[in-house]
This record gives sequence, C-alpha cells and structure tokens, in this order.
Amino acid sequence: MISLGQIKYLNSLQINKYRKIHQEFIAEGNKIVIDLLQADFEVKEIFATTGWLEINSSRYQQKNIRVTEVTEEDLNKISGLTSANEVFAVVKMPLRSLDLQAISGELTLMLDDIRDPGNLGTIIRTADWFGISSIICSHESVDIYNPKVVQATMGSIARVRVYYADLKDVLKNLSPDTKVYGTYMDGEDLSKKRLLDKGIIILGNESKGISKELSPLINERIGIRAFEKGKSESLNAAVACSIILYEFRRK
Amino acid sequence: MISLGQIKYLNSLQINKYRKIHQEFIAEGNKIVIDLLQADFEVKEIFATTGWLEINSSRYQQKNIRVTEVTEEDLNKISGLTSANEVFAVVKMPLRSLDLQAISGELTLMLDDIRDPGNLGTIIRTADWFGISSIICSHESVDIYNPKVVQATMGSIARVRVYYADLKDVLKNLSPDTKVYGTYMDGEDLSKKRLLDKGIIILGNESKGISKELSPLINERIGIRAFEKGKSESLNAAVACSIILYEFRRK
Repeated sequence: MISLGQIKYLNSLQINKYRKIHQEFIAEGNKIVIDLLQADFEVKEIFATTGWLEINSSRYQQKNIRVTEVTEEDLNKISGLTSANEVFAVVKMPLRSLDLQAISGELTLMLDDIRDPGNLGTIIRTADWFGISSIICSHESVDIYNPKVVQATMGSIARVRVYYADLKDVLKNLSPDTKVYGTYMDGEDLSKKRLLDKGIIILGNESKGISKELSPLINERIGIRAFEKGKSESLNAAVACSIILYEFRRK
Repeated sequence: MISLGQIKYLNSLQINKYRKIHQEFIAEGNKIVIDLLQADFEVKEIFATTGWLEINSSRYQQKNIRVTEVTEEDLNKISGLTSANEVFAVVKMPLRSLDLQAISGELTLMLDDIRDPGNLGTIIRTADWFGISSIICSHESVDIYNPKVVQATMGSIARVRVYYADLKDVLKNLSPDTKVYGTYMDGEDLSKKRLLDKGIIILGNESKGISKELSPLINERIGIRAFEKGKSESLNAAVACSIILYEFRRK
C-alpha cells in the first residue's frame, strides 16, 4: 500500500525544483532499476509488485533500501509513464566532482545546451555503447534526472558520469595539449579526418549549435557530410552525436 | 477566425482513424509547411498569422489552397504542440505505388515494425540527409502521418517517399540480385564489411528486432560493434539506423 503522502512526494519528483530540494530522483522499469542497483547509486526506496520482489530479492536485500510491495494499480498512481512498469525506485543523486586530469586522458563529450530530454537520454545511452565514461553539460542543459531523460538512457545513466559545469571554465582549465573538437554544420568531413582517441568533443544546442563564446577554445571543427548538399538541412542532435562517436571509435 | 466545426475537424486529424477516413494530415511550423508546399504534396488549407501570410504569399498564391488568417490564440486551439507555430497546414495524403525495379537500383530502407513516432520521424530526417529516397514500412509500423512523426521529420517528410507494404512480399518480389542487409545486435561489424551502394537495409522493431519470418530472405547480417562488450545493451533504433546509413554512404 502507498499512502497519499507518498504518492504526493513521488509525483513531486517529476518536477526539477523538488528534485533539487530533496536531491532524489525516480527511475522506472526492471532494466533501469537493476542497472542502478548494480552501480554506485544509492537506491533509497523501491516500490514493486510481489512478482518482481520475489525474483530480485538478492538485488535489494542486505542494502539499506525501504521496500514496499504494491499492486499495479498503485504503480499507475506513481508512474509518469503511460503504462506503469513492475518496479519504481527513488534514488539519491550522487555527488560528483569533475576530475579535469582524468577527463583529458580519455574521450569526453561536452554538451552545450542540449534542451530535449529524449536527446540527452539517447546521447547518454549512445555514449555508454561507445565507451564514453564522462559527459559534461552546460548549466542550461536539460536536467539529467528529468524522468524522460532517465527513461531514455535505458539504464546507461547508471554507468556514464554526467557533470554540470561552466563549459568555458572547464575548457580553459584543461591541460593545453588536450584536443578540443567542435561539431558544426559546416565542419570538416569527419570521415576524412585523423581523429585522436582522447580529447573533448563538443556538441551544440539543437537549434543554435555551439555558443560563440566557446569557439576560440576549439581546435578542430568537424561535421557530417550530407549525401547531396542543400536538400536536407540538419540532423537530430542525438543522431549527429552517435555518428561522431561511431567514427571516433572506428579509428 | 476559425469556426468550432473547423477546430473539431482539425483536432480529429490528430487521430489515425480520422486521418484514414479523410486522407488528410496536419503539419505545423514554417519549415515543414514550406517544404511541403515546395514538394509534390497537395496542401489543401493553410491557417497562418498575418505576418506569415505576408512574407510567404508567393508560396501559396496561384495554387488551389484555402487560406485563413488566424490569431496566435486560434493557432493554439488547433495546435497539437505545447507552443503553437505561426502556420498550420492541412495536407492531402499522396497516393503512391511502390516501384520494385526503382527500389532495387538504389539504397532503400525497410522498417520492420518501428513503433515510436519520434524514432520514425528521426529516421526519415536522417534518410533524407544520406540521400535515401524511399522507405518501406511494415503495416504494423507507426503511421507516418501521426503529427509526432511529421514534426520529427523536420520537413524531410516532403522529400523521402514512405510506403507501407507486406515486407515479406516485397522481398520475395525483388530482382534476385538485390542484396538484402539485415540489422542485428550480433550482426557482423559494419565497419569491417564491404557494403554496396544499392540494396535493401532492414531495421527491426525497437525491442524485438527483425521478425523471424524475414530472416530467410536476408543475405547479410550487419551490426554495430560496442566499444566494450557486455556493458551497454543496445542502441536506440534511430541512432542505429543513422550509423548504418553513415557507414553505407561513407564507402
């Protein structure tokens, strides 16, 4: 059974302001909850059906997790999805501090003002696939703990570390030999370039691209060539990101 | 001014059943409406602000289009978006018949049961970028005239021809030398394969992949290699599709 107070609290976590106050977020569905339980996230509370609790007892027992057995009807009351899943979790936001030295030694994604939750979630999922362990977002980017982002990551939120920072500050404080790639509509054809296996790849906002104040800090402008120029105008941000990561890892 | 009857009619076109009955669909926003006006689509009616109508008069005059000047308030009543755009159009669904011979001579995408509107829209947009002129969808796939699909194409719906057909029938009736590529999670690494510049690329359903009844008709099983095996489980369907199209066009 879930109380009315609990339902109210859980629904409030759909909203950024309340997530910030409580430093907690929600995750729904078997795959995402299991991925979070396996990772270094602190799962505070689980609401699940009898079936789910039975099958997964080893995953949540002996951890400091409040567990509530609920009906599917209860799950529908707390779910933000059109059809609720068998399990719903409340998770503590991790405290993370950005290690600039570690970032410079690997391939890192930097997102300059990505606004669409589906795009951010898909970018995190794709980054996970291509072995990117850190993503640095501008403060204006959509909140990674927005439930639509969490769901679109399909569990990858448990593995990829996402930071929010002032991108200009980060770029200025990187070691000077760190290569910074910026993605532009008219950038140099990616498939023809020599690409390093470490450095920063910046992806800009869905409609405005990379902000002007970052351009002096970019070493290489890269882009994806259209098959026939002038017909189609653009690619979706998550699509562009995945082609870029594919090409970096291909080499 | 828009009448209550018009608002009712336009809202009904948000629903598949009524689109089928009337053979009309809706498109919103400057870019998509202009792309449709420039293509071979029959735009039946335009609702737009005074400003839009003034700037774009050459685009709709001397065509058989009903034009209604509306306020932003009116647009909000007919819009399916959270914030309405300055222009809204009602468009006739084109009648198209699949030319199997033409299909075999180029690179064609085949979608086996793509269900998410955002995915289909993004796939159409990406196909347009990479010069794919035809997409064949299974009958179970989401409707291309679903407003969410139309919006996600960002105008590419005006250029890429989308057909609905029985995929098995189409594959059986292709000329025997047409190469059929199927996308699988465990397919052969795309980046290491010789790929032709024509043939069929099949992409499966978001969770179930390509249906079993199609597999005997597939010549090559292709896939996208993860950076580190066993960590991340999958890629979003539109993301997988774009990496595949990129690699085909790269070669």
